[in-house]
Amino acid sequence: MSETWDLHQHGPASLWQQCAENLAAATASARHPFHLLTVASNTSTAGPDQRTVVLRSFNEAARTISFHTDIRSAKVSQLAACRHVSLHWYDPAARVQLRIAATAAVHHSDQRAAQAWHRSRTTSRACYTAANAPGSAVEVFPTAPPIPLDEDDRGLIHFAVVVCQFSALEVLSLHAAGHQRVRLLLVPEPMRWQLLAP
Amino acid sequence: MSETWDLHQHGPASLWQQCAENLAAATASARHPFHLLTVASNTSTAGPDQRTVVLRSFNEAARTISFHTDIRSAKVSQLAACRHVSLHWYDPAARVQLRIAATAAVHHSDQRAAQAWHRSRTTSRACYTAANAPGSAVEVFPTAPPIPLDEDDRGLIHFAVVVCQFSALEVLSLHAAGHQRVRLLLVPEPMRWQLLAP
Repeated sequence: MSETWDLHQHGPASLWQQCAENLAAATASARHPFHLLTVASNTSTAGPDQRTVVLRSFNEAARTISFHTDIRSAKVSQLAACRHVSLHWYDPAARVQLRIAATAAVHHSDQRAAQAWHRSRTTSRACYTAANAPGSAVEVFPTAPPIPLDEDDRGLIHFAVVVCQFSALEVLSLHAAGHQRVRLLLVPEPMRWQLLAP
Repeated sequence: MSETWDLHQHGPASLWQQCAENLAAATASARHPFHLLTVASNTSTAGPDQRTVVLRSFNEAARTISFHTDIRSAKVSQLAACRHVSLHWYDPAARVQLRIAATAAVHHSDQRAAQAWHRSRTTSRACYTAANAPGSAVEVFPTAPPIPLDEDDRGLIHFAVVVCQFSALEVLSLHAAGHQRVRLLLVPEPMRWQLLAP
Protein backbone atom coordinates (compact mmCIF):
# COMPACT_ATOMS: atom_id res chain seq x y z
CA MET A 1 0.00 0.00 0.00
CA SER A 2 1.43 3.39 -1.00
CA GLU A 3 0.85 5.10 2.33
CA THR A 4 1.22 8.78 1.63
CA TRP A 5 -1.09 11.67 2.19
CA ASP A 6 0.93 13.89 -0.12
CA LEU A 7 -1.84 14.21 -2.68
CA HIS A 8 0.68 15.17 -5.37
CA GLN A 9 1.50 11.44 -5.39
CA HIS A 10 -2.08 10.44 -6.18
CA GLY A 11 -4.77 10.42 -8.78
CA PRO A 12 -8.45 9.95 -7.94
CA ALA A 13 -8.34 6.13 -8.06
CA SER A 14 -5.19 5.74 -5.96
CA LEU A 15 -6.41 8.25 -3.38
CA TRP A 16 -9.72 6.41 -3.03
CA GLN A 17 -7.76 3.17 -2.74
CA GLN A 18 -5.74 4.65 0.07
CA CYS A 19 -8.85 5.94 1.84
CA ALA A 20 -10.51 2.55 1.40
CA GLU A 21 -7.51 0.64 2.77
CA ASN A 22 -7.37 2.93 5.77
CA LEU A 23 -11.08 2.66 6.52
CA ALA A 24 -10.94 -1.12 6.18
CA ALA A 25 -7.93 -1.29 8.50
CA ALA A 26 -9.67 1.05 10.96
CA THR A 27 -12.61 -1.33 11.38
CA ALA A 28 -10.19 -4.03 12.53
CA SER A 29 -7.87 -2.09 14.83
CA ALA A 30 -8.75 0.09 17.81
CA ARG A 31 -5.32 1.70 17.43
CA HIS A 32 -5.98 2.94 13.89
CA PRO A 33 -6.44 6.74 13.82
CA PHE A 34 -9.69 6.29 11.89
CA HIS A 35 -11.17 3.72 14.31
CA LEU A 36 -13.26 6.47 15.90
CA LEU A 37 -15.23 9.04 13.95
CA THR A 38 -17.49 11.94 14.73
CA VAL A 39 -21.03 11.71 13.42
CA ALA A 40 -23.22 14.80 13.14
CA SER A 41 -26.98 14.62 12.77
CA ASN A 42 -29.68 17.26 12.86
CA THR A 43 -31.80 17.83 15.93
CA SER A 44 -35.34 19.04 15.35
CA THR A 45 -34.83 22.32 17.19
CA ALA A 46 -31.28 23.31 18.06
CA GLY A 47 -29.10 22.66 15.04
CA PRO A 48 -26.66 19.79 14.69
CA ASP A 49 -25.57 17.28 17.32
CA GLN A 50 -22.30 15.30 17.34
CA ARG A 51 -20.85 12.24 19.04
CA THR A 52 -17.88 9.91 18.74
CA VAL A 53 -18.72 6.42 17.45
CA VAL A 54 -16.71 3.33 16.59
CA LEU A 55 -16.26 2.49 12.91
CA ARG A 56 -17.70 -1.02 12.66
CA SER A 57 -17.66 -1.77 8.94
CA PHE A 58 -16.62 -0.32 5.61
CA ASN A 59 -17.80 -1.58 2.24
CA GLU A 60 -15.78 -0.16 -0.64
CA ALA A 61 -18.08 -1.34 -3.44
CA ALA A 62 -21.27 -0.20 -1.72
CA ARG A 63 -19.63 3.02 -0.47
CA THR A 64 -20.94 2.53 3.05
CA ILE A 65 -19.64 2.63 6.58
CA SER A 66 -21.56 1.51 9.66
CA PHE A 67 -21.59 2.05 13.40
CA HIS A 68 -23.64 0.54 16.21
CA THR A 69 -26.03 2.32 18.52
CA ASP A 70 -28.85 1.80 20.99
CA ILE A 71 -32.23 2.11 19.31
CA ARG A 72 -33.34 4.23 22.30
CA SER A 73 -30.60 6.87 21.75
CA ALA A 74 -31.34 10.43 20.64
CA LYS A 75 -29.45 9.98 17.38
CA VAL A 76 -31.89 7.31 16.20
CA SER A 77 -34.87 9.63 16.52
CA GLN A 78 -32.82 12.40 14.89
CA LEU A 79 -32.05 10.10 11.95
CA ALA A 80 -35.71 9.16 11.66
CA ALA A 81 -36.51 12.85 11.13
CA CYS A 82 -33.50 13.65 8.89
CA ARG A 83 -31.32 10.99 7.28
CA HIS A 84 -28.52 13.38 6.29
CA VAL A 85 -25.40 12.87 8.40
CA SER A 86 -21.87 14.19 8.33
CA LEU A 87 -18.99 11.77 9.01
CA HIS A 88 -15.68 13.22 10.12
CA TRP A 89 -12.24 11.79 10.83
CA TYR A 90 -9.09 13.65 11.78
CA ASP A 91 -5.69 12.05 12.23
CA PRO A 92 -3.56 14.59 14.13
CA ALA A 93 -0.30 12.70 13.46
CA ALA A 94 -0.79 12.54 9.68
CA ARG A 95 -2.65 15.89 9.74
CA VAL A 96 -5.36 14.47 7.48
CA GLN A 97 -9.08 15.14 7.61
CA LEU A 98 -11.75 13.04 5.89
CA ARG A 99 -15.26 14.44 5.53
CA ILE A 100 -18.25 12.65 4.13
CA ALA A 101 -21.87 13.71 3.64
CA ALA A 102 -23.92 10.51 3.84
CA THR A 103 -27.45 9.18 4.08
CA ALA A 104 -28.13 7.00 7.11
CA ALA A 105 -30.33 3.90 7.33
CA VAL A 106 -31.06 2.39 10.76
CA HIS A 107 -31.19 -1.41 10.88
CA HIS A 108 -33.03 -2.83 13.89
CA SER A 109 -34.62 -6.24 14.35
CA ASP A 110 -33.54 -7.28 10.87
CA GLN A 111 -30.97 -9.58 9.34
CA ARG A 112 -28.23 -6.95 9.18
CA ALA A 113 -28.68 -6.15 12.87
CA ALA A 114 -28.70 -9.83 13.81
CA GLN A 115 -25.51 -10.50 11.83
CA ALA A 116 -23.68 -7.57 13.40
CA TRP A 117 -24.92 -8.60 16.85
CA HIS A 118 -23.58 -12.12 16.52
CA ARG A 119 -20.21 -10.79 15.30
CA SER A 120 -19.92 -8.30 18.15
CA ARG A 121 -18.04 -8.93 21.39
CA THR A 122 -19.89 -9.89 24.53
CA THR A 123 -18.35 -6.87 26.27
CA SER A 124 -19.90 -4.62 23.61
CA ARG A 125 -23.24 -6.36 23.97
CA ALA A 126 -23.41 -5.58 27.67
CA CYS A 127 -24.29 -1.89 27.02
CA TYR A 128 -27.47 -2.87 25.26
CA THR A 129 -28.87 -4.66 28.32
CA ALA A 130 -28.93 -1.41 30.35
CA ALA A 131 -32.35 -0.74 31.83
CA ASN A 132 -32.24 3.00 31.14
CA ALA A 133 -32.26 4.50 27.68
CA PRO A 134 -29.03 6.36 26.80
CA GLY A 135 -29.42 10.03 27.67
CA SER A 136 -32.31 9.48 30.07
CA ALA A 137 -32.10 11.07 33.52
CA VAL A 138 -30.84 8.81 36.30
CA GLU A 139 -30.38 9.29 40.05
CA VAL A 140 -26.91 7.77 40.40
CA PHE A 141 -24.09 6.93 38.00
CA PRO A 142 -24.95 3.49 36.64
CA THR A 143 -22.48 0.68 37.17
CA ALA A 144 -21.42 -1.33 34.12
CA PRO A 145 -23.98 -3.99 33.20
CA PRO A 146 -22.67 -7.52 33.78
CA ILE A 147 -21.05 -9.00 30.70
CA PRO A 148 -23.55 -11.40 29.16
CA LEU A 149 -22.79 -14.95 28.16
CA ASP A 150 -22.18 -15.67 24.49
CA GLU A 151 -25.69 -16.99 23.95
CA ASP A 152 -27.37 -14.17 25.89
CA ASP A 153 -29.32 -12.10 23.37
CA ARG A 154 -31.21 -9.88 25.81
CA GLY A 155 -29.50 -6.76 24.45
CA LEU A 156 -30.44 -7.48 20.84
CA ILE A 157 -33.80 -5.76 21.28
CA HIS A 158 -31.96 -2.42 21.72
CA PHE A 159 -29.18 -3.03 19.20
CA ALA A 160 -29.11 -1.11 15.92
CA VAL A 161 -26.69 -0.80 13.02
CA VAL A 162 -26.56 2.57 11.29
CA VAL A 163 -25.41 2.19 7.69
CA CYS A 164 -24.22 5.41 6.04
CA GLN A 165 -24.08 5.55 2.25
CA PHE A 166 -22.13 8.15 0.31
CA SER A 167 -21.01 9.02 -3.20
CA ALA A 168 -18.25 11.55 -2.48
CA LEU A 169 -15.68 12.37 0.16
CA GLU A 170 -13.38 15.24 0.88
CA VAL A 171 -9.73 14.87 1.86
CA LEU A 172 -7.72 17.67 3.44
CA SER A 173 -4.01 17.06 3.92
CA LEU A 174 -2.03 19.68 5.81
CA HIS A 175 1.53 20.36 4.66
CA ALA A 176 3.96 23.16 5.40
CA ALA A 177 4.55 23.48 1.64
CA GLY A 178 0.84 24.05 0.99
CA HIS A 179 -2.31 22.37 2.23
CA GLN A 180 -4.01 20.00 -0.22
CA ARG A 181 -7.75 19.56 -0.47
CA VAL A 182 -9.74 17.46 -2.93
CA ARG A 183 -13.30 16.32 -3.36
CA LEU A 184 -13.45 12.73 -4.63
CA LEU A 185 -16.55 12.06 -6.72
CA LEU A 186 -16.95 8.27 -6.66
CA VAL A 187 -19.93 8.11 -8.99
CA PRO A 188 -20.55 8.05 -11.85
CA GLU A 189 -17.59 5.94 -12.91
CA PRO A 190 -14.89 6.62 -13.77
CA MET A 191 -14.39 8.41 -10.48
CA ARG A 192 -12.87 11.85 -10.63
CA TRP A 193 -11.74 14.54 -8.24
CA GLN A 194 -12.04 18.25 -7.90
CA LEU A 195 -9.06 20.12 -6.48
CA LEU A 196 -10.17 22.74 -3.98
CA ALA A 197 -8.48 25.70 -2.38
CA PRO A 198 -7.65 24.65 1.21
CA MET B 1 -5.98 21.06 39.81
CA SER B 2 -7.70 17.79 40.62
CA GLU B 3 -7.21 16.14 37.25
CA THR B 4 -9.63 13.25 37.22
CA TRP B 5 -12.39 12.32 34.86
CA ASP B 6 -13.88 9.90 37.38
CA LEU B 7 -17.06 11.88 37.82
CA HIS B 8 -17.70 10.20 41.19
CA GLN B 9 -14.97 12.54 42.45
CA HIS B 10 -16.85 15.64 41.30
CA GLY B 11 -19.80 17.86 41.92
CA PRO B 12 -21.14 20.28 39.31
CA ALA B 13 -18.84 23.16 40.29
CA SER B 14 -15.64 21.10 40.42
CA LEU B 15 -16.43 19.36 37.13
CA TRP B 16 -17.00 22.71 35.42
CA GLN B 17 -13.75 23.94 36.99
CA GLN B 18 -11.94 20.96 35.50
CA CYS B 19 -13.51 21.49 32.08
CA ALA B 20 -12.64 25.19 32.25
CA GLU B 21 -9.02 24.52 33.22
CA ASN B 22 -8.66 22.04 30.39
CA LEU B 23 -10.19 24.35 27.80
CA ALA B 24 -8.00 27.24 28.97
CA ALA B 25 -4.90 25.04 28.79
CA ALA B 26 -5.94 23.77 25.35
CA THR B 27 -5.93 27.29 23.90
CA ALA B 28 -2.27 27.63 24.90
CA SER B 29 -0.86 24.25 23.91
CA ALA B 30 -1.04 22.47 20.56
CA ARG B 31 -0.29 19.24 22.42
CA HIS B 32 -3.37 19.44 24.64
CA PRO B 33 -5.98 16.85 23.61
CA PHE B 34 -8.63 19.57 23.47
CA HIS B 35 -6.57 21.92 21.26
CA LEU B 36 -8.54 20.75 18.22
CA LEU B 37 -12.31 20.41 18.16
CA THR B 38 -14.92 19.39 15.65
CA VAL B 39 -17.53 21.99 14.79
CA ALA B 40 -20.80 21.03 13.13
CA SER B 41 -23.03 23.53 11.39
CA ASN B 42 -26.11 23.13 9.24
CA THR B 43 -25.97 23.32 5.48
CA SER B 44 -29.02 24.68 3.72
CA THR B 45 -29.71 21.47 1.81
CA ALA B 46 -27.80 18.37 2.87
CA GLY B 47 -27.88 18.19 6.65
CA PRO B 48 -24.94 18.97 8.90
CA ASP B 49 -21.32 19.66 7.95
CA GLN B 50 -18.25 19.19 10.18
CA ARG B 51 -14.64 20.27 10.27
CA THR B 52 -11.69 20.33 12.63
CA VAL B 53 -10.76 23.76 13.96
CA VAL B 54 -8.22 25.10 16.43
CA LEU B 55 -9.48 26.26 19.83
CA ARG B 56 -8.30 29.87 19.98
CA SER B 57 -9.89 31.22 23.15
CA PHE B 58 -12.02 30.19 26.10
CA ASN B 59 -13.81 32.59 28.42
CA GLU B 60 -15.11 30.90 31.54
CA ALA B 61 -17.24 33.80 32.77
CA ALA B 62 -18.80 34.51 29.38
CA ARG B 63 -19.15 30.76 28.60
CA THR B 64 -17.64 31.20 25.14
CA ILE B 65 -15.00 29.57 23.00
CA SER B 66 -13.70 30.91 19.71
CA PHE B 67 -11.97 29.73 16.56
CA HIS B 68 -10.65 31.53 13.48
CA THR B 69 -11.81 31.12 9.93
CA ASP B 70 -11.75 32.69 6.49
CA ILE B 71 -14.80 34.90 5.89
CA ARG B 72 -15.05 33.28 2.43
CA SER B 73 -15.40 29.73 3.81
CA ALA B 74 -18.60 27.69 3.55
CA LYS B 75 -19.06 27.58 7.31
CA VAL B 76 -19.47 31.36 7.47
CA SER B 77 -22.40 31.33 5.07
CA GLN B 78 -23.82 28.32 6.91
CA LEU B 79 -23.61 30.24 10.20
CA ALA B 80 -25.28 33.25 8.62
CA ALA B 81 -28.28 31.02 7.81
CA CYS B 82 -28.29 29.07 11.09
CA ARG B 83 -26.35 30.14 14.17
CA HIS B 84 -26.74 26.82 16.00
CA VAL B 85 -23.50 24.86 16.16
CA SER B 86 -22.34 21.71 17.88
CA LEU B 87 -18.86 21.66 19.45
CA HIS B 88 -17.23 18.30 20.08
CA TRP B 89 -14.00 17.14 21.75
CA TYR B 90 -12.83 13.61 22.32
CA ASP B 91 -9.67 12.66 24.17
CA PRO B 92 -8.94 9.03 23.27
CA ALA B 93 -6.33 8.64 26.02
CA ALA B 94 -8.60 9.86 28.82
CA ARG B 95 -11.66 8.43 27.03
CA VAL B 96 -13.59 11.65 27.64
CA GLN B 97 -16.03 13.38 25.32
CA LEU B 98 -17.23 16.96 25.70
CA ARG B 99 -20.28 18.10 23.76
CA ILE B 100 -21.68 21.60 23.59
CA ALA B 101 -24.63 23.09 21.76
CA ALA B 102 -23.75 26.74 21.14
CA THR B 103 -24.80 29.85 19.29
CA ALA B 104 -22.18 31.28 16.94
CA ALA B 105 -21.43 34.93 16.21
CA VAL B 106 -19.04 35.79 13.37
CA HIS B 107 -16.73 38.74 14.01
CA HIS B 108 -15.25 40.30 10.87
CA SER B 109 -13.81 43.78 10.35
CA ASP B 110 -14.51 44.66 13.96
CA GLN B 111 -12.49 45.20 17.12
CA ARG B 112 -12.65 41.56 18.19
CA ALA B 113 -11.33 40.40 14.81
CA ALA B 114 -8.57 43.03 14.82
CA GLN B 115 -7.45 42.03 18.33
CA ALA B 116 -7.32 38.35 17.45
CA TRP B 117 -5.48 39.15 14.22
CA HIS B 118 -2.77 41.10 15.98
CA ARG B 119 -2.33 38.31 18.55
CA SER B 120 -2.09 35.59 15.88
CA ARG B 121 1.15 34.26 14.46
CA THR B 122 2.42 35.44 11.11
CA THR B 123 2.43 31.80 9.92
CA SER B 124 -1.30 31.60 10.71
CA ARG B 125 -1.93 34.89 8.94
CA ALA B 126 -0.46 33.60 5.70
CA CYS B 127 -3.55 31.44 4.96
CA TYR B 128 -5.75 34.51 4.82
CA THR B 129 -3.78 36.07 1.97
CA ALA B 130 -4.65 33.20 -0.40
CA ALA B 131 -6.19 34.44 -3.63
CA ASN B 132 -8.77 31.66 -3.83
CA ALA B 133 -11.63 31.28 -1.37
CA PRO B 134 -11.40 28.08 0.72
CA GLY B 135 -13.37 25.32 -0.99
CA SER B 136 -13.34 26.98 -4.40
CA ALA B 137 -12.28 24.91 -7.40
CA VAL B 138 -8.65 25.26 -8.44
CA GLU B 139 -6.61 23.79 -11.29
CA VAL B 140 -3.51 22.78 -9.32
CA PHE B 141 -2.72 22.23 -5.66
CA PRO B 142 -1.88 25.68 -4.32
CA THR B 143 1.52 26.21 -2.75
CA ALA B 144 1.66 27.76 0.70
CA PRO B 145 1.32 31.54 0.58
CA PRO B 146 4.53 33.33 1.61
CA ILE B 147 4.63 34.13 5.31
CA PRO B 148 3.82 37.83 5.68
CA LEU B 149 5.84 40.29 7.68
CA ASP B 150 4.60 41.28 11.12
CA GLU B 151 3.11 44.51 9.87
CA ASP B 152 1.52 42.96 6.76
CA ASP B 153 -2.25 43.10 7.28
CA ARG B 154 -3.31 42.04 3.77
CA GLY B 155 -5.00 38.90 5.17
CA LEU B 156 -7.08 40.80 7.70
CA ILE B 157 -9.81 41.42 5.12
CA HIS B 158 -10.53 37.65 5.08
CA PHE B 159 -9.98 36.97 8.77
CA ALA B 160 -12.93 36.18 11.04
CA VAL B 161 -13.36 35.09 14.64
CA VAL B 162 -16.28 32.80 15.39
CA VAL B 163 -17.39 33.17 19.01
CA CYS B 164 -19.60 30.34 20.30
CA GLN B 165 -21.70 30.96 23.39
CA PHE B 166 -23.25 28.20 25.49
CA SER B 167 -25.11 27.62 28.74
CA ALA B 168 -24.66 23.85 29.15
CA LEU B 169 -22.24 21.09 28.28
CA GLU B 170 -22.28 17.35 28.36
CA VAL B 171 -19.43 15.20 29.65
CA LEU B 172 -19.11 11.50 28.90
CA SER B 173 -16.36 9.60 30.71
CA LEU B 174 -15.79 5.99 29.71
CA HIS B 175 -14.80 3.56 32.47
CA ALA B 176 -14.72 -0.21 32.63
CA ALA B 177 -16.67 -0.02 35.91
CA GLY B 178 -19.48 1.94 34.24
CA HIS B 179 -19.56 4.88 31.87
CA GLN B 180 -20.45 8.25 33.41
CA ARG B 181 -22.45 10.92 31.64
CA VAL B 182 -23.67 14.25 32.95
CA ARG B 183 -25.21 17.38 31.58
CA LEU B 184 -23.84 20.48 33.28
CA LEU B 185 -26.34 23.34 33.37
CA LEU B 186 -24.26 26.46 33.92
CA VAL B 187 -27.13 28.89 34.18
CA PRO B 188 -29.05 29.94 36.16
CA GLU B 189 -26.67 29.97 39.09
CA PRO B 190 -26.02 28.00 41.14
CA MET B 191 -24.99 25.61 38.37
CA ARG B 192 -26.32 22.10 38.61
CA TRP B 193 -25.96 18.85 36.75
CA GLN B 194 -28.20 16.12 35.51
CA LEU B 195 -26.87 12.57 35.61
CA LEU B 196 -27.71 10.71 32.41
CA ALA B 197 -27.65 7.07 31.42
CA PRO B 198 -24.55 6.59 29.24
